[in-house]
Amino acid sequence: MDTADKINKYSQKIGYDIKVLGLAKTIDNDLAETDHCPGYGSAAKYIATSVLEAAKDAEIYQQNIITVIEVMGRNAGWLAAASALSKLSSKVGADLIYLPERIFCIDNFLKDVQKIYDKKGKVIVVVSEGIKDANGKYISELYSNTHKDVFGHSQLGGVGSVLGELIREKIEKRVKVIEFGILQRCAMHFASKTDIEESVIAGTTAVKCAIEGHSGYMVGFDRNYDEYGTYHCSTKLIPLSSAANAEKIFPAEWINEAGNNVTQEAINYIKPLIVGEVPIKTDCGLPVYAELKKYFIAKKL
Amino acid sequence: MDTADKINKYSQKIGYDIKVLGLAKTIDNDLAETDHCPGYGSAAKYIATSVLEAAKDAEIYQQNIITVIEVMGRNAGWLAAASALSKLSSKVGADLIYLPERIFCIDNFLKDVQKIYDKKGKVIVVVSEGIKDANGKYISELYSNTHKDVFGHSQLGGVGSVLGELIREKIEKRVKVIEFGILQRCAMHFASKTDIEESVIAGTTAVKCAIEGHSGYMVGFDRNYDEYGTYHCSTKLIPLSSAANAEKIFPAEWINEAGNNVTQEAINYIKPLIVGEVPIKTDCGLPVYAELKKYFIAKKL
Repeated sequence: MDTADKINKYSQKIGYDIKVLGLAKTIDNDLAETDHCPGYGSAAKYIATSVLEAAKDAEIYQQNIITVIEVMGRNAGWLAAASALSKLSSKVGADLIYLPERIFCIDNFLKDVQKIYDKKGKVIVVVSEGIKDANGKYISELYSNTHKDVFGHSQLGGVGSVLGELIREKIEKRVKVIEFGILQRCAMHFASKTDIEESVIAGTTAVKCAIEGHSGYMVGFDRNYDEYGTYHCSTKLIPLSSAANAEKIFPAEWINEAGNNVTQEAINYIKPLIVGEVPIKTDCGLPVYAELKKYFIAKKL
Repeated sequence: MDTADKINKYSQKIGYDIKVLGLAKTIDNDLAETDHCPGYGSAAKYIATSVLEAAKDAEIYQQNIITVIEVMGRNAGWLAAASALSKLSSKVGADLIYLPERIFCIDNFLKDVQKIYDKKGKVIVVVSEGIKDANGKYISELYSNTHKDVFGHSQLGGVGSVLGELIREKIEKRVKVIEFGILQRCAMHFASKTDIEESVIAGTTAVKCAIEGHSGYMVGFDRNYDEYGTYHCSTKLIPLSSAANAEKIFPAEWINEAGNNVTQEAINYIKPLIVGEVPIKTDCGLPVYAELKKYFIAKKL
């Protein structure tokens, strides 16, 4: 959005007639001024489903086991929070959820895990890659090296392994660590129908607005509930300058007091975004996804 | 199958009238005497799909990137081999595939990766967790510690990270490591219809055979092709003693000469097993899976 804003301002300055409209696409759901972002609903659905499946997997064994699942999210816990939905359709799912918006305390964490372990023998822990201790130090950095991506952001990862090792030492040797990695942003085979439909509306709105002569806006979403409590989504135009570089973190009041789960309000917010499945075209049993034609790439269109 | 065989023999010895039928269920596809195993087709479909999606993810970036994907398979490469199918519906997919049936040479591996990297800038590597060097030492053990599971098997994992680090040092800093972990055995949301249907047939056959008085057999599969080349699957009874403790590894002749991919014969073998999708029941956008009723668990039935 910052780049789009700069292009828009520069085009206006030099009198170049181009219309710049931004789309709030990010699975991180951390853009300001919009209720939610295209992409988030599908990633949330994949995460909640995979956490549910991992919990089912643990359930069938007699032995105790602790599963630690690491989810994307450098500064915002929206993706990790989505794992709370795993319990909507099942008795098993995420037992403990830790977001980067709350200071992570290893002692409290081990107490939380021990408590559920003593009760059930099986624990499903979901953790954002970006959780930090009271000194602002990434938990993943306490034990491992980090790489930087092209923007100079620390490339996180490994916090699941770090916590898994801690649990192995202190509580239970049988630990599984799962890192969803890029699968959570590219697993189109189980996308949310709501998300796909809203994404198409956002894109269509941007094109229509450009044709009508608007420029310098991001297409955002508003959320409404009708008299029956049914969720509806509408679009709105937000000045790019308001959306650029502002980060919408997960609301503090949607994290429970103990800092190890999210509240019902958070579940209510995410729930409508993951509804519905999209029939995908397959060939030989494999999804067929759109490919940019060589023609367009060659012409750099 | 070994346990089923023992129960059968002991029951006969003490004159206890119980019928013991085995089902060849394992995603590893490594049971002897059967063409393939229930579960394998769905895991193969998930792996091929996720490798395809990871390859699509890498494709959209301008920067070069090398993706290393670690797949289950201690001694048998059936699961890693399934990643070859990623290219059936797409131009991108697994470029290099390493199975435990072939000795893994780090120098050759780096040369393989470098060659594709020089040509395309992007490389998708798929590797079985159980690959070993010429001394029979697990590649994952060369750099990391291993844990043992309840059967005393080494709990592998980490070979993806080991190879990722090597690539970072020698070829390209931008490396993504993905470990599918238990997701490849529990991601029921994208199961193979063929696999599900065949599993039901196997189970039904076992019950029918027990009612007819058979005991001490595993229900296995035979594969046939009709005059149009269409795949058909039929069941057969295999003495438990033949199936027990025999491991069916991936055929040496289905690995290419360079040892870095599988042949067309391998693809032809796996291809029919992943065909078709199963509509799943959902609630709030999440899969609803069968749960054993408390009643049955309490009565230990």
